[in-house]
Amino acid sequence: MFHLLDIIGTMAFAMSGALTAMHKRLDPFGVFIIAFVTAVGGGTLRDVLIGRTPVGWMLNLQYVYVIILGFFLAILFRKKFDKLRTSLFLFDTIGLGVFTLIGLEKGIMIGLHPVICVALGTMTACFGGVLRDILCNEIPTVFRREIYATICIFGGVVFFILRKWNLADDALYLVTSVVIISVRLLAVKYKWHLPAFDHK
Amino acid sequence: MFHLLDIIGTMAFAMSGALTAMHKRLDPFGVFIIAFVTAVGGGTLRDVLIGRTPVGWMLNLQYVYVIILGFFLAILFRKKFDKLRTSLFLFDTIGLGVFTLIGLEKGIMIGLHPVICVALGTMTACFGGVLRDILCNEIPTVFRREIYATICIFGGVVFFILRKWNLADDALYLVTSVVIISVRLLAVKYKWHLPAFDHK
Amino acid sequence: MFHLLDIIGTMAFAMSGALTAMHKRLDPFGVFIIAFVTAVGGGTLRDVLIGRTPVGWMLNLQYVYVIILGFFLAILFRKKFDKLRTSLFLFDTIGLGVFTLIGLEKGIMIGLHPVICVALGTMTACFGGVLRDILCNEIPTVFRREIYATICIFGGVVFFILRKWNLADDALYLVTSVVIISVRLLAVKYKWHLPAFDHK
Repeated sequence: MFHLLDIIGTMAFAMSGALTAMHKRLDPFGVFIIAFVTAVGGGTLRDVLIGRTPVGWMLNLQYVYVIILGFFLAILFRKKFDKLRTSLFLFDTIGLGVFTLIGLEKGIMIGLHPVICVALGTMTACFGGVLRDILCNEIPTVFRREIYATICIFGGVVFFILRKWNLADDALYLVTSVVIISVRLLAVKYKWHLPAFDHK
Repeated sequence: MFHLLDIIGTMAFAMSGALTAMHKRLDPFGVFIIAFVTAVGGGTLRDVLIGRTPVGWMLNLQYVYVIILGFFLAILFRKKFDKLRTSLFLFDTIGLGVFTLIGLEKGIMIGLHPVICVALGTMTACFGGVLRDILCNEIPTVFRREIYATICIFGGVVFFILRKWNLADDALYLVTSVVIISVRLLAVKYKWHLPAFDHK
Repeated sequence: MFHLLDIIGTMAFAMSGALTAMHKRLDPFGVFIIAFVTAVGGGTLRDVLIGRTPVGWMLNLQYVYVIILGFFLAILFRKKFDKLRTSLFLFDTIGLGVFTLIGLEKGIMIGLHPVICVALGTMTACFGGVLRDILCNEIPTVFRREIYATICIFGGVVFFILRKWNLADDALYLVTSVVIISVRLLAVKYKWHLPAFDHK
């Protein structure tokens, strides 16, 4: 189940990268690379920073296959994308939840402090999108629109509070991901966002 | 003493990141991330390149706390920033000196060649600012204005010359950081800079 | 022979970085850094991702010296560059072939899957140029013009097909690099490129 969600999240991130890159009129190779980087970028940064090398996707080809599939789906359905926007958004939100959990878990496994684990979870979920935007030469949207990364941090905090209550692992994962996914859906529905600073 | 300067440097770098990000009208989360990345980016790159993982700030929460403090100070005092510019510049210069020394030291500890150690020192001092500018979608100022990184290289060379003379470690650190800090102050006061190339 | 080509490739990449940076009117330090990053960026990313640290150029100063030489050559001959364009292009193409092979080799050495080895080869050959463009604040040209990275992938596939036929290592390297170099020359001569997607 968890693994299936990981696959869905990876594919959704790959598709979101591919669609952004096609919008920038990159060639197919550029589109593929950006799909790839969007999907694995977060996990790669996390693995490099904690010294878990060779990084994850090098040891498990499944990710590569899923990204290739996402790439072709994005190309095939790019013109129908307006109708697909909702499902892609849903996938992306599932990816956000699952990737946060995976990041939290890796941090716990090597005994890092909860604050650092939350940072690892957020990084795993968000850094792919940051790379996508840097490569397409834009200010990363994660820094500007809606409360994307803030939700991952919130989810991570919820995770550690529940963990203190000795919740079983399965329930812990389920509740945390449901929290992240619901808050994101609510945030987008009701247009929650953080105010920008007035600098003057 | 050395440790205190490290703290001051980290906070100054965090504040410089936060102020740049607020200027770009990012939301509070974006501002925090850019403060964080500016403060730890140099050390993180250094640690990753030499294989010292998990990277430094993951094992010592002090950095996280100092950055959070710098973030709030930057927000609170952002409107009075013109008066603060001088003190921030002073902090930033101290950070430059201390971070260069820390980078040099890590390189020496694992037996790298002096040239590489100087590169590590410069990287530790400057890469946070480079990341800040990339994330804010600008050509890194380190490549364009005043002789910022060049001072770190100069400081590193002074360090190794003094080291050959068998100076005690404490004196070595003191002299090197005083050199870096003074050259920077002079460089800004007298507007020293490297000429750009005329390409035509 | 192989080593000599590595040196030539490194120098060509350093010169290409330096020329791009001078064109952007960076100061000499900025130009040097971009030359350095263009030349070693690909190998550094590869080494970090597979956990081969300290990364290659830290353990072998030859790269540093070659890059310094390339930097000065680029400065000296920048005004005659129009006449030099052809030779630089040739060097760059040799670099592309050699760097792809080096990446492939490192992947094989630690037992990674051929698909991942091809990715490592492509990354080694292309990521320096990507970094150069990001630091100069442009959409990486590798994603837009001619079939640059695609050639590395093609070369990597040829390599593994020949390897299955039990070709001797020397012949294998020779044929693969000749294939990469010839395809690139043909691709530029006949303006082969991948079509961009029409997003509408």
